[in-house]
Amino acid sequence: MKIISAVVLAASSLVFSSAANAQFAKAEDAIKYRKNALFVMSQHYGRIGAMVNGRVPFDAKAAAENAAIAESMSKLPWAGFGAGTDKGDTKAKPEIWTEQAKFKENGDKMMAEMTKLSAAAKTGNLDSIKTAFAATSDTCKTCHDAYRAK
Amino acid sequence: MKIISAVVLAASSLVFSSAANAQFAKAEDAIKYRKNALFVMSQHYGRIGAMVNGRVPFDAKAAAENAAIAESMSKLPWAGFGAGTDKGDTKAKPEIWTEQAKFKENGDKMMAEMTKLSAAAKTGNLDSIKTAFAATSDTCKTCHDAYRAK
Repeated sequence: MKIISAVVLAASSLVFSSAANAQFAKAEDAIKYRKNALFVMSQHYGRIGAMVNGRVPFDAKAAAENAAIAESMSKLPWAGFGAGTDKGDTKAKPEIWTEQAKFKENGDKMMAEMTKLSAAAKTGNLDSIKTAFAATSDTCKTCHDAYRAK
Repeated sequence: MKIISAVVLAASSLVFSSAANAQFAKAEDAIKYRKNALFVMSQHYGRIGAMVNGRVPFDAKAAAENAAIAESMSKLPWAGFGAGTDKGDTKAKPEIWTEQAKFKENGDKMMAEMTKLSAAAKTGNLDSIKTAFAATSDTCKTCHDAYRAK
């Protein structure tokens, strides 16, 4: 059994090693990368939220710019959730790696809604932006509830 | 003199407050934002470097994708260097705020070279990528030497 475990461990390390060659030098870089990408996204997303919620005046140009950046950023974090990146300075729950298909589905939904938000923001119609923002926020909440520790 | 200093301090806080309304909720968010954007950029930039330096095999598609993301990311950090963001969890030197025109020139050069790198990467010609990568790296080094504490 010990030999089998060692082989499994070696195999999973290998998965990260080869992913790391292509992507990240070490697991902590992958963790930092996904957190950093999500934080940058959240800052731009939050500026749209401030307009949607009336905390700042609606500025169609700023909304469109921020939504375009948030949309671009929404594509990045997923590469940082590779095998071997479950331990470290992270609130990511183990379920991300045991329910990979479901986690991916959550990410795909978020990206799809973020794309709709960016399209809505380009029209300059605040009501459309509000609808798309609410739908996008739902995908954030669903994923955080399931996959992020409090 | 104390009164004048207090007034100057209050005025510079005010500058950040109004910038913060439009951009960041607090100075530490601005600092985190610029560091996070630069880290995400550096990860994609580093993957091109690995190909340029022969550490990983040249992959034209991956080079073009990473260069496009690095180019997009290169536009973001600057908004995080507003007034009032000189103190905190940062290696940014005070000269950034006392030599703002020169700092901006450094940032503009980096963005311009990153755009050239992205254009070079789209051609798929490794020699062009090498040339553009070296020129971009020079702008990183010049700015870090002048404006980032060791």
